[in-house]
Amino acid sequence: MTTSVRRDRDRLAVTWHDGSTDEFHYVWLRDNCPCPDCRDPDAWERRFDTVALAPDVAPRGVQVGDGLLLEWPDGHVTPLSEGWLRDHAYGAVRRGLGVDASVRWDASIANAPPEVTFSEVHAGDDGLLRWLRLIRDYGFALVRDVPCEREAVAELAERIGFVQESNFGRTFEVVSKPQPENLAFTAQRLFVHTDIPNRHSAVNLQLLHCLENSADGGESLLTDGFEAARQLATSAPEAYELLRSVAVPWRYQDRVTDIVNRFPVIRTDDQGRPVEIRFSTALMAPLDLDAELVVPFYDALRSFGRLVRDPRLEYRFRLAPGDCLIFDNQRVLHGREAFDPSSGRRHLQGCYVDKDDALGRLRALERGLRGSPVG
Amino acid sequence: MTTSVRRDRDRLAVTWHDGSTDEFHYVWLRDNCPCPDCRDPDAWERRFDTVALAPDVAPRGVQVGDGLLLEWPDGHVTPLSEGWLRDHAYGAVRRGLGVDASVRWDASIANAPPEVTFSEVHAGDDGLLRWLRLIRDYGFALVRDVPCEREAVAELAERIGFVQESNFGRTFEVVSKPQPENLAFTAQRLFVHTDIPNRHSAVNLQLLHCLENSADGGESLLTDGFEAARQLATSAPEAYELLRSVAVPWRYQDRVTDIVNRFPVIRTDDQGRPVEIRFSTALMAPLDLDAELVVPFYDALRSFGRLVRDPRLEYRFRLAPGDCLIFDNQRVLHGREAFDPSSGRRHLQGCYVDKDDALGRLRALERGLRGSPVG
Repeated sequence: MTTSVRRDRDRLAVTWHDGSTDEFHYVWLRDNCPCPDCRDPDAWERRFDTVALAPDVAPRGVQVGDGLLLEWPDGHVTPLSEGWLRDHAYGAVRRGLGVDASVRWDASIANAPPEVTFSEVHAGDDGLLRWLRLIRDYGFALVRDVPCEREAVAELAERIGFVQESNFGRTFEVVSKPQPENLAFTAQRLFVHTDIPNRHSAVNLQLLHCLENSADGGESLLTDGFEAARQLATSAPEAYELLRSVAVPWRYQDRVTDIVNRFPVIRTDDQGRPVEIRFSTALMAPLDLDAELVVPFYDALRSFGRLVRDPRLEYRFRLAPGDCLIFDNQRVLHGREAFDPSSGRRHLQGCYVDKDDALGRLRALERGLRGSPVG
Repeated sequence: MTTSVRRDRDRLAVTWHDGSTDEFHYVWLRDNCPCPDCRDPDAWERRFDTVALAPDVAPRGVQVGDGLLLEWPDGHVTPLSEGWLRDHAYGAVRRGLGVDASVRWDASIANAPPEVTFSEVHAGDDGLLRWLRLIRDYGFALVRDVPCEREAVAELAERIGFVQESNFGRTFEVVSKPQPENLAFTAQRLFVHTDIPNRHSAVNLQLLHCLENSADGGESLLTDGFEAARQLATSAPEAYELLRSVAVPWRYQDRVTDIVNRFPVIRTDDQGRPVEIRFSTALMAPLDLDAELVVPFYDALRSFGRLVRDPRLEYRFRLAPGDCLIFDNQRVLHGREAFDPSSGRRHLQGCYVDKDDALGRLRALERGLRGSPVG
């Protein structure tokens, strides 16, 4: 069987040699022309002006070979390969989005936590790729044998992106100190939470590099927020729906700033999947809800809070000097047990990296491995 | 008339001395206790554990004075002032959110563009406050008489936040150059667009400082995306609805990165108001829509694209050396006319700042002016 096309008023129906059929509208085909006039060969951005696209554009000629060769009324020619067309046919990309690489986990991950060594990550692209895949799939990873030096955390971060400066500085020290501007800088227990839920840029990766940990207590805690969301959706669908739909005002303030934004606890994408978790009762400003939602919302918050702290979900471990934890603050909640500052010293150095940079680097490395061209 | 309270099963109804009534649930009142045990007096974060809040908590005593004094079954006492209670009563915060400070504008803003001088901004908090308010209300401002020195743009940015490093660097040069990684780095016309729509951190402020502008052409273009969205919602509600609901894949790729994320062109908040505009046909990856949406979506995109380029909406002006443009990339689209690099030199230096930092600084300055306490 050979590939054949049927021309319709506003689209082509292509029946491939294996018998399957895909439809492509003329506006879509013209807009996706890959020729150097329509796509800048250096910047790989669209040069063709989508806004000026004639709504009734239709090719005057269609040739079928290895893909399609379309000739437009103005003489412009658009070549599109079969491979590209089938990869981008309506539904194909969404089917790919439906394949979720992430591995949901619970406390049992203590048996085999995702980890790499510092030398692996620094040796070359293979180690870097392995690290980035762990971050994408588990939402966290441990890097072992990082030199116990200040600013090593920023150097490590720069393997995958740009260090994001914030009101906590370019890097910040997690130690117990007097008059802390943040409860992290005390010796208190911190229930698992996400950081800076009040900021748009809460969508980030956080690195915490352990320089010293001789104090009693201070065990680290991590919970997979996506797994907790999944369990809540099953056990209490109404609670899940409230956490998904109610915009909570998150607020951080100190002497020089006062940042408040409203986001739900669980943000879902257009496929209905959780993609962002924000949960920090410390930074929750007074709720302004319709009166009949107040008690149900507090119930929902309590249910989710119990789940994320459930010992069956919480991964509990002790950071050793030289360990660097990296976690996806959009997915994984973190916390720690109280520690006794009189018994020894606990010193972590941290920084933030844009998650988009990390996943962008991963995609570029995977593209390189596949040997496929940009496109 | 004096203030009185009625106790209900799960809430208090407070009738104030002016005759108006507000309801407050016990869980909400307990959760918002401002005492130093419940709110850290240094970090001003909630220390009280919302998750452990008993669902049936109720005060054993309620005293009415200047506000309420609640005594809980465990002896804990919560004082809440009348001012605070009335400011945070259900509906009060949302009424405040409904008051939109932003000024919609069109091409006529050329008669009186929002502007400040460099010395004003550097003189003290009054000038800084005025600048930040212009940015909040108009989505852009011009700073005049900025020293024509490299890195002055970063210094200016640091008045309001932290410079955000990206793949374009900490600061970047907008000049015509060979083999550009981005169409901005050519002499071509750029239709108005928003930057980096593929990134979560597209929610930012961009500064562009003009160091030289002796080339023919190169006029700057700005359009208020919120005004364009408003006009589209009126003239073509179905198109507006598609741009609000369809997640567009935005993608930037080069040799080392490949960042793709899906966001609508117009993101609205839970009050239905536009809060983020993403529009750059250059970075739009092939759309994967249900077949029957393809043509309507292209129509909607074309309608919005024509609106943002409409000379009645587009503010057209020429940057002079020493001018620094700052604009809200979440709201205002920017572009430029083509210029002739053989006729002279056009050199802008730019950088990005987190919008949350700028608005946080503004809120803190306004709080200071009001003389009101943190809270």
